[in-house]
Amino acid sequence: MDTGLERLFRHGGDINAARAVFPGAPEPWIDLSTGINPEPYPIPALDPSCWARLPDPSEVADLQAVAAARYGCAAEEVVVAPGTQALLQWLPRLFPAARVAIPGPTYGGHASAWRAAGAEIVADGAAHEVVVTPNNPDGRRAPLASLRRRAERLQLLVVDEAFADFEPESLAADPPPNTVVLRSFGKTYGLAGARLGFAIARESLARRLREALGPWAVGGPTLALGRAALADKDWLEAARLRLMADGAWLDAQLQAAGFEVVGGTLLFRLVSTAKAADRFRKLGEAGILVRPFSYRPDWLRLGISRAQDRARVAAALKMSSPD
Amino acid sequence: MDTGLERLFRHGGDINAARAVFPGAPEPWIDLSTGINPEPYPIPALDPSCWARLPDPSEVADLQAVAAARYGCAAEEVVVAPGTQALLQWLPRLFPAARVAIPGPTYGGHASAWRAAGAEIVADGAAHEVVVTPNNPDGRRAPLASLRRRAERLQLLVVDEAFADFEPESLAADPPPNTVVLRSFGKTYGLAGARLGFAIARESLARRLREALGPWAVGGPTLALGRAALADKDWLEAARLRLMADGAWLDAQLQAAGFEVVGGTLLFRLVSTAKAADRFRKLGEAGILVRPFSYRPDWLRLGISRAQDRARVAAALKMSSPD
Repeated sequence: MDTGLERLFRHGGDINAARAVFPGAPEPWIDLSTGINPEPYPIPALDPSCWARLPDPSEVADLQAVAAARYGCAAEEVVVAPGTQALLQWLPRLFPAARVAIPGPTYGGHASAWRAAGAEIVADGAAHEVVVTPNNPDGRRAPLASLRRRAERLQLLVVDEAFADFEPESLAADPPPNTVVLRSFGKTYGLAGARLGFAIARESLARRLREALGPWAVGGPTLALGRAALADKDWLEAARLRLMADGAWLDAQLQAAGFEVVGGTLLFRLVSTAKAADRFRKLGEAGILVRPFSYRPDWLRLGISRAQDRARVAAALKMSSPD
Repeated sequence: MDTGLERLFRHGGDINAARAVFPGAPEPWIDLSTGINPEPYPIPALDPSCWARLPDPSEVADLQAVAAARYGCAAEEVVVAPGTQALLQWLPRLFPAARVAIPGPTYGGHASAWRAAGAEIVADGAAHEVVVTPNNPDGRRAPLASLRRRAERLQLLVVDEAFADFEPESLAADPPPNTVVLRSFGKTYGLAGARLGFAIARESLARRLREALGPWAVGGPTLALGRAALADKDWLEAARLRLMADGAWLDAQLQAAGFEVVGGTLLFRLVSTAKAADRFRKLGEAGILVRPFSYRPDWLRLGISRAQDRARVAAALKMSSPD
């Protein structure tokens, strides 16, 4: 069994592990360890029948159409999945490879899934490649033109656009033939527990992914929720403005507290600091969970905090200062 | 694209297809085309946070424990899946086989999933075998002792107990080493749209299935719902009594209308009738959807109807009589 501390280094969002590691921390915890929007899309009233009956094929088709409008592709190119993680699990089985290039550091779920299927992970030079853009945790963007050039010399290119909702451009609008673009729903919409994600790929590739997931892959309530949220442009624009304002506030606090902001997206910031382990601990003792990285002991990743948590966040960041 | 009529022969529950095939039928439709309990478990109040954050590993562990108590196995033997269909999709990939024995007729989803992975389906004599018990659509039970004997000479035995919740015995309580038992949640609890199902297998086999599904396979709301429902013994007993009473009422109407009841479970009845296609159509025109079978033109399957639908169901069954 993993210790709580090990779990905190592996994934964000594990408040139970944080409670075990910092038993004296004040409640409620403020979870800044993920890149999930802390102000979720409001759950619409759900017809009880969407829990009761098997989702109808037309409900999936409706969500495909709404997602296609949102991502700028054709409905036939959209695969509706119970979270992008479910697609990560399937890709190595559908496209077996001895070696997969995953330029890092990046989200560890890709390497885990390919390794579990027997693949070796390399930095470059394999026929299968996975690129996360904007990258997690550093926010690095891979230009579309470079992705298109890469796709030309690869058998399979997986482009994880989990944090791309507020980016000016996306490969989803016109994916190359051998490319699977992954789009996350739960992060931007603050609804990671609903389990919804998408693959966007040319029609024949999309069909293959859809057949792997099988019928009724996503439940009725999540289909309804996804349709409402992805069609709501006003909410998305308001979320963008709020995340910009809250992010700017956070940047100012981080800089005042001696952190250097080295990357990020509208949904998280990556900071560098000489005493990251010490500051991670001090923040934890104050009931604020951020994300540490075993491979970069000078890095911490922070999600964007809510306005109502500003006083506690500002005080804790300041208090975590090494001097 | 399939015609509506083809869809009605493939799966139950497709009311949109029924509307297309029987455009003049009265609304609301009464859907007797599935084996899903028409009186769902009441959705408990769900904490908004279960939609927002990624489900915590402890929530999955809690549901494993509740399911283990319900099915009489150990928590480590329970795999929590977003519907048993998701497990059907994975089994042929995890246990590849050139030939799989699926004694039929039975639920078509097994054969589809194995065929999609390249396997040939045979009636008997393969090292991999899938048994549905009680069988869908005829309710035939495979005795536990015979399943255990079969498991001994097989590499993999899949036992689909989707309709076993009210049966006196289950292989889930002590699965043989090479056996995967599937248990459905949505049918008995009338919550097929929530997408929840379980595999029960010895610990190492269960771990393999869990790793294939990956983390966060089931969303927070469904985990909470599953925990509440599977722990509620009183509701289950009340559901059993109600289904017995409603089933006995249905049997009487079926016999009075000239159908022969040839099999079933507490959640559905299989009937035989000389003019099944004609009666399927007459029932459809009356807004009552039942399940026809292309391979047995004398069969129809009917779910158990709700007390409030008795008058319409009785009248339509009588009216469907060929004379």
